[in-house]
Amino acid sequence: MPLWQLFTPENAFTPDEKADLADKITSIYSGAKSKENFGFELPRFYTTVVFHEIKADSFFVGGVTHDKFVQIEVVHIARTNEGAAALAGITVEEILRRYFDSVSEVLQPYIAARGYELEFHVETAPFETWKIDGMTPPPPHSVAERRWFEENRSSLYTAEEVGDDVRVATA
Amino acid sequence: MPLWQLFTPENAFTPDEKADLADKITSIYSGAKSKENFGFELPRFYTTVVFHEIKADSFFVGGVTHDKFVQIEVVHIARTNEGAAALAGITVEEILRRYFDSVSEVLQPYIAARGYELEFHVETAPFETWKIDGMTPPPPHSVAERRWFEENRSSLYTAEEVGDDVRVATA
Amino acid sequence: MPLWQLFTPENAFTPDEKADLADKITSIYSGAKSKENFGFELPRFYTTVVFHEIKADSFFVGGVTHDKFVQIEVVHIARTNEGAAALAGITVEEILRRYFDSVSEVLQPYIAARGYELEFHVETAPFETWKIDGMTPPPPHSVAERRWFEENRSSLYTAEEVGDDVRVATA
Repeated sequence: MPLWQLFTPENAFTPDEKADLADKITSIYSGAKSKENFGFELPRFYTTVVFHEIKADSFFVGGVTHDKFVQIEVVHIARTNEGAAALAGITVEEILRRYFDSVSEVLQPYIAARGYELEFHVETAPFETWKIDGMTPPPPHSVAERRWFEENRSSLYTAEEVGDDVRVATA
Repeated sequence: MPLWQLFTPENAFTPDEKADLADKITSIYSGAKSKENFGFELPRFYTTVVFHEIKADSFFVGGVTHDKFVQIEVVHIARTNEGAAALAGITVEEILRRYFDSVSEVLQPYIAARGYELEFHVETAPFETWKIDGMTPPPPHSVAERRWFEENRSSLYTAEEVGDDVRVATA
Repeated sequence: MPLWQLFTPENAFTPDEKADLADKITSIYSGAKSKENFGFELPRFYTTVVFHEIKADSFFVGGVTHDKFVQIEVVHIARTNEGAAALAGITVEEILRRYFDSVSEVLQPYIAARGYELEFHVETAPFETWKIDGMTPPPPHSVAERRWFEENRSSLYTAEEVGDDVRVATA
């Protein structure tokens, strides 16, 4: 997590463009700007981006086919807006403003600037039923999470690495 | 939103049938009947319908392949059942009854009448992380939402058009 | 429900392997082990499994293509963790431990043992907007649900079959 699913017309983006978008979407959560905006850097491998190219005869907006439209569904687990706001010492409204500024900066050149319309939403899913490679991901801002960030892959972690948190890996 | 995803066997519906279904699904939320049932008309372009035709070897019900089955996942944001009930001056139970009557009327000829089994569910997602073309959609029943309904597209709106509501477009 | 969507690279699994996985996933919720672990057996036809084979140029993890990765999204409605815990007379933590033990046992040979990385999460959706073949599914542990389990298909049910529960089929 985050999991981004982009539903687009066929061939809306080239393979290179999809790769560039995926890289920039990942950096919303993991880059220097993420640290500046939200006070955290998620491990890059947490972010999954899936493009679904939908045939024109299977994709409808307002009941009609629409060849200039992108639908984006995002699922968040790793961080809450409230937690990010508390960490950064700002309001939830400010967190959302910064988040959507980052999102718009990434999407605008590929979507609005090319005449695509866009619908975007975020869903949240519970932490306690989230697993990576069979393990409960380490708690936010723990030593273990930081190590996962630096190594950019999952690995077993110890109780010491998560402090008082009891969510130790059991896989 | 609403976002409807229909997972069907390959070639379950012709392109014309998919278009007809998409049109009728959109009218559940936007037509005269919607106004009569629920007291509102969503802008038609709010509704997205995506058909995913799944190969038989990738689609299982009860652990076995099933060529007469449709799975429908719906995400709602624009209205809550509670809000719709309050507006119409009826109970949530009555809202749900009317909603599923409308859904059944649309789906029955294409699904049950053709011998397809169906599983259907609705998820809800938070309003504050929903965007259309970079804008926070106007509040329910605002002047701005009504204008979006009439123009059937998004556009910048003013503070006057949303009354006391502070969710003014910032895009 | 449960609805499992597996996003995999193309040809990650053969048709036979997908069928085997779907069968075993279904048995997490419906088999003898399910009864032993959780105290219930869902009707097998409640479980839907969809494989989405995603082309390499549309599937990114950490901003880069990744040919050894599986993303699994699960939606639960029929049972809650809290309800299952109360029924089995154990804690929610123990329910989750048993659940993920079952999940790992099913997935491990196909995913970790083959060198695939995995991200897995569960979302929950509300009972009141869930329908099977136009009917509200019978209440957990009702006579009607048990009959659906034994017959492995939906059918009209009576008020007697759901006890005091008022969620009688109206379709």
